[in-house]
Amino acid sequence: MLIFRRSIKVLIALLPICSFCRGQNQVSNWHEVQPGIWSAIIGKPDSIDFLKASGAKPQTAALKTMPAAAFPLDKSQIMAETRDGRTYLKFPLQPDEKLFGLGLNFKRTQIRGNVYRLHIEHYNGIDDGTTHAPVPFYVSSKGYGVFINAARYIDVWAGTSVRRDSKTQPQAIDMNTNKKNWVTVPSGDNVEMMVPAQGVEVYVVGGPTIMDAVSRYNLLQGGGCLPPKWGLGFWDRTPSLYTQDQVAAEVAEFKKRDFPVSVIGLEPGWQSRAYPCTYAWDSTRFPQPAKFVQALAASNIKVNLWLHAWVSPQSAIYKSLEPLSGDHTIWAGLAPDFTLKSTTGVISNYFRKTHLDIGISGYKMDENDGNVNEGWYYPDMTHFPSGTTGDQMHQLYGMLMQKFTTTMFRERNQRTYGLVRASNAGAASFPYVLYDDYYSHPDFITALINSSFSGILWTPEARSSKDAEDWVRRMQAVCFSPLAMLNAWSSGAKPWSFDTVNKEVADVIKLRMQLLPYFYTTFADYAFKGVPPVRSLNLLPEFSVKEEVNNKKDSLYNAFVSKDIKNEFMVGDNLLVVPIFAGEKSRDVVLPKGNWYDFYTGHYAGNGEVISIEPTLDKIPLYVKDGGVIPMIPVRNQVTDEKLPVELRYYGHQPSSFELYDDDGKTFDYEKGKYVRISLITTKKGNKLLHSTVIPRGQKSWSFTSFKWRDMTEEK
Amino acid sequence: MLIFRRSIKVLIALLPICSFCRGQNQVSNWHEVQPGIWSAIIGKPDSIDFLKASGAKPQTAALKTMPAAAFPLDKSQIMAETRDGRTYLKFPLQPDEKLFGLGLNFKRTQIRGNVYRLHIEHYNGIDDGTTHAPVPFYVSSKGYGVFINAARYIDVWAGTSVRRDSKTQPQAIDMNTNKKNWVTVPSGDNVEMMVPAQGVEVYVVGGPTIMDAVSRYNLLQGGGCLPPKWGLGFWDRTPSLYTQDQVAAEVAEFKKRDFPVSVIGLEPGWQSRAYPCTYAWDSTRFPQPAKFVQALAASNIKVNLWLHAWVSPQSAIYKSLEPLSGDHTIWAGLAPDFTLKSTTGVISNYFRKTHLDIGISGYKMDENDGNVNEGWYYPDMTHFPSGTTGDQMHQLYGMLMQKFTTTMFRERNQRTYGLVRASNAGAASFPYVLYDDYYSHPDFITALINSSFSGILWTPEARSSKDAEDWVRRMQAVCFSPLAMLNAWSSGAKPWSFDTVNKEVADVIKLRMQLLPYFYTTFADYAFKGVPPVRSLNLLPEFSVKEEVNNKKDSLYNAFVSKDIKNEFMVGDNLLVVPIFAGEKSRDVVLPKGNWYDFYTGHYAGNGEVISIEPTLDKIPLYVKDGGVIPMIPVRNQVTDEKLPVELRYYGHQPSSFELYDDDGKTFDYEKGKYVRISLITTKKGNKLLHSTVIPRGQKSWSFTSFKWRDMTEEK
Repeated sequence: MLIFRRSIKVLIALLPICSFCRGQNQVSNWHEVQPGIWSAIIGKPDSIDFLKASGAKPQTAALKTMPAAAFPLDKSQIMAETRDGRTYLKFPLQPDEKLFGLGLNFKRTQIRGNVYRLHIEHYNGIDDGTTHAPVPFYVSSKGYGVFINAARYIDVWAGTSVRRDSKTQPQAIDMNTNKKNWVTVPSGDNVEMMVPAQGVEVYVVGGPTIMDAVSRYNLLQGGGCLPPKWGLGFWDRTPSLYTQDQVAAEVAEFKKRDFPVSVIGLEPGWQSRAYPCTYAWDSTRFPQPAKFVQALAASNIKVNLWLHAWVSPQSAIYKSLEPLSGDHTIWAGLAPDFTLKSTTGVISNYFRKTHLDIGISGYKMDENDGNVNEGWYYPDMTHFPSGTTGDQMHQLYGMLMQKFTTTMFRERNQRTYGLVRASNAGAASFPYVLYDDYYSHPDFITALINSSFSGILWTPEARSSKDAEDWVRRMQAVCFSPLAMLNAWSSGAKPWSFDTVNKEVADVIKLRMQLLPYFYTTFADYAFKGVPPVRSLNLLPEFSVKEEVNNKKDSLYNAFVSKDIKNEFMVGDNLLVVPIFAGEKSRDVVLPKGNWYDFYTGHYAGNGEVISIEPTLDKIPLYVKDGGVIPMIPVRNQVTDEKLPVELRYYGHQPSSFELYDDDGKTFDYEKGKYVRISLITTKKGNKLLHSTVIPRGQKSWSFTSFKWRDMTEEK
Repeated sequence: MLIFRRSIKVLIALLPICSFCRGQNQVSNWHEVQPGIWSAIIGKPDSIDFLKASGAKPQTAALKTMPAAAFPLDKSQIMAETRDGRTYLKFPLQPDEKLFGLGLNFKRTQIRGNVYRLHIEHYNGIDDGTTHAPVPFYVSSKGYGVFINAARYIDVWAGTSVRRDSKTQPQAIDMNTNKKNWVTVPSGDNVEMMVPAQGVEVYVVGGPTIMDAVSRYNLLQGGGCLPPKWGLGFWDRTPSLYTQDQVAAEVAEFKKRDFPVSVIGLEPGWQSRAYPCTYAWDSTRFPQPAKFVQALAASNIKVNLWLHAWVSPQSAIYKSLEPLSGDHTIWAGLAPDFTLKSTTGVISNYFRKTHLDIGISGYKMDENDGNVNEGWYYPDMTHFPSGTTGDQMHQLYGMLMQKFTTTMFRERNQRTYGLVRASNAGAASFPYVLYDDYYSHPDFITALINSSFSGILWTPEARSSKDAEDWVRRMQAVCFSPLAMLNAWSSGAKPWSFDTVNKEVADVIKLRMQLLPYFYTTFADYAFKGVPPVRSLNLLPEFSVKEEVNNKKDSLYNAFVSKDIKNEFMVGDNLLVVPIFAGEKSRDVVLPKGNWYDFYTGHYAGNGEVISIEPTLDKIPLYVKDGGVIPMIPVRNQVTDEKLPVELRYYGHQPSSFELYDDDGKTFDYEKGKYVRISLITTKKGNKLLHSTVIPRGQKSWSFTSFKWRDMTEEK
């Protein structure tokens, strides 16, 4: 026993004095690489990373206009270590700090207290980092963000690991006698991460607000995308094996029934072979593709083509791509190495000739996520000719496909808008919207809200429903997302599939068409300022606790502020959207501080409180903030060049201004200054509201004939 | 266009000629390290691995008695590569080869066509390698196994990746026109693996049969465990906060109701504090632990103690363990570094004094799996004093706890038997049975079957049920597992919880008590020969297709042979168990080739065919193979030293022999030869069966007074 004790003492003496912090070094080489954005290099980072691969250029000019931000963290608390071929990172956390982000999660928006392994793959029902866009960027309620620029499967312990060298230590609790207070995950005071690479570039993104941190992160990667105007209309993806005549008949049916449609999406059947792909038109189903596309163009309807990356041996470009692809096949198709210019050159050349030149507007790029649980993808062991490893390529694949297709259109000074199943950091400026095969409506909305933290876009596409109520609710929600779409690939559903709710469905699609100027301005703010179009309430300064609690209402409101709000969100600056899920007879809606008004009636709804509503089927509840302007055009079923009058709906009583954006809607000329911001200004003289519409001298609008203000709220 | 083509050609010229096999080298340094077992070193393996950590010694003598085995694979097809701090491996596969193993999976036994990341963690409902015992060993229907001796999170693509340099290439199929034949996962002709380490030791394990490969693998790690006889009785784990008086009352209730019980398990409430643990008796609930344990011992009932690894600040050994633990806490408790002798020394010393010395028989070691999805465990970033990394430690933790506790008992020449929630390769000789919080009955049985491929044991413990039928079915199944247990930690359930089925439940527990000699012999075969006690049908040579198909029955049988059989299994050589799940009114039972007989009646049941049965609630269907002997003793409610008469039930008509095993049932003296194999031999003279019972001259049995043969099957 004595001998034993002695041997322990010897061992203790042999251990380094600080056995706990061994190897962890403070990260000291921070550089302000962009206004309010600092980066540091730890170890020897990979030669390829998100920002290099995307090639997106920081919007320095826009970043310069933002409020000043100091380095937001205690530098002495940011630690790193490389050992064993891996890089370990530690960032500090305050006890009252909330964390958001890490990409497209479906179950919760608050990520603190959870562990993630960021791995692109089809979402399988668990928020563990396995998803279509596991972006390694998180933002804090304290108004900063952290971004790990590494295309690897990164492990993130978000406030879940408790280090013995931490200053704040949770207390041990006896579960036997104090089960009530025992917690599964004692709160840690840090975010620990592991990057399986010899080194890494990390970014700390300043605020001062959480929205500023998100905006800075988006601007770092080139700002958000600005879709062409037609992209904000209604999309109909027809069943996979439809022929060109069946598609034409479907379009005729939209006209006959007076339903809007702007884009027709063709699913795999347009190709001569698919899974793997030839990218060539099938001559039986589409004997005259150019004529078909042109006929739709004449009706102001664009055509979008489905594809995936895996190249069929029957494809005309297969031979050229053989030396430019990975050493594993998927469904017997090649996996092109998209990091190589030669690869994208071969493909772009073919796509230009056979798709773009006949008028194709864009793509839906499927299956770049993979589903390792189902057992298919190229494995991490895959060699690519560029030397990029299988795991790096997996994390980059969807983004690289976005990049080369965007470039192809950009070279024609033509904007595109499309869909992609995998994305990641660095892709904010690429005009693609994420989707997947999962289909929980509430979870789809959580994903929509989460997209706002991570520089990605998401569509809760409608595919099918078991009843009319669900159909309406899904259609209503998707019309307040970046891409309003019915995807009938396999369901064969039509917007009018449920007879009893045709009016409700048509109404919300038409409302989206009327809101086009509002949506477009919202996207312009994404492109120019990095402010995401869809926004979690947690990005709003108004969504904060009340210091003074005067009544039950106040405490209820404060309780909601700390909850994970997964069923309401903002679109743009002014519109609060409350999607309703089938079966909900009533809903508690939390309204941030400030007066809010019903969009439809203009009536006062509440202020910093939780209201209970009983939604009717015909409307998705929408609220406008005090002073909010919602510009609306008359209903049109397609997006055209026709100039239209604008109704400027004004809500509430606050002086305000709204900078309505306009440009040609389809080219990149706006990047050369060819755009206009029309100031919609409201002032007050006594109790009287004075509205003015100011087009800067010498500028013009592309889309509007006239402006008419409409006060939606009765005078006090 | 021309220019563009030229640049591709230049690029092609610059690529290495064999761009696909770049870096992959044939593994050439194979050494036959044990009879029929070859190992090779690739790169620079970790300093700690499964076999080193477990310290288990190969059973060379037993391996020498096995049939000769040649190296079972084409060596030129085994490739490896180390790059980027990782090791990549490739093993060949034949098109008609089935794969099994990779540890404790719950949804399927056939692993080919799936991808796994072997990561110890609470099973979450998906067979993706995340489980309590993700053993990196697979066996093939071709009669060999592959074992990766690396305590890392290993990625396994089991016949799912298709390499372009493979000889067999799946055809591209057009899903548009040939959906019926299109498959999600085209069959690959290899197993590819990635080990996140600079190198690795790999083993190829010969057959010639699949069962031989499993046995060799088990013998490599010291053979299977031989539990003490009492361990094979019935276990009752009482509610967590029971006092010693409540436990005593429960034992009295077992007696009064005439239900067997051999072991009482105490859950966290026996400790003064738990979650984290003090390992000290709670003085309010257990004021006189020694007296309590001794009183139960007097009734031939053992006591097993729950614990987990995380040490409470209130524990007497906390201070000593501070320098011997990782730099992260769990539930504010220390995570001891069990790779250090000093650590296990401190703990063993305390356990001996406070547990073993007063008669505690063993442990249930909980929570060493972790649940990263819930957000708790020490993260991979954790530093341990020994230099073992967090991920290595995670893969080893449960095994290391088994090792030190086994050693503690072995030092007293005392066998233990207990439960553990995490295990891995190298632990076959440790007398621990896996369990978890998951509770699907069918999936529990799949896990039981899977345990047979991987040198692990599993109990489908009964905890609670929503109805009497489920209760009976669970009790019946658990009585044919390595550990027959009711776990009432939180449910408070009793064996007699469902009044209407008390007889059925008591019957099956008593049947298990009667079968003790059979179970014990089965475990002896595990210990001496490496043959697992529970066995998948796929381990039997009789479970193979019929070459000649004469009728519908034959084709149905052949169809079942290729199916994933997850609802029947063998216990030992002779007994086919068909656990029934609640709600099943009928069941198709596949009987391997050879005659099979009903255990209860001795009637002929079938031969190489699928029979349909309508199980009654009172019995779990059991079948005995032709010539099978089932030794049975009279019903006793405890396992004691009392010598008992044995009934030798004989089924069918085939000449056979069965080597009944016996020893003192509690010490390791059997390792020094103090055991007996009693030959139960049946020969045939004309149509007449002749039975003989041969005890080798000069030897004795410890447990039996007399033997009486009973022919269960009527003469033909």
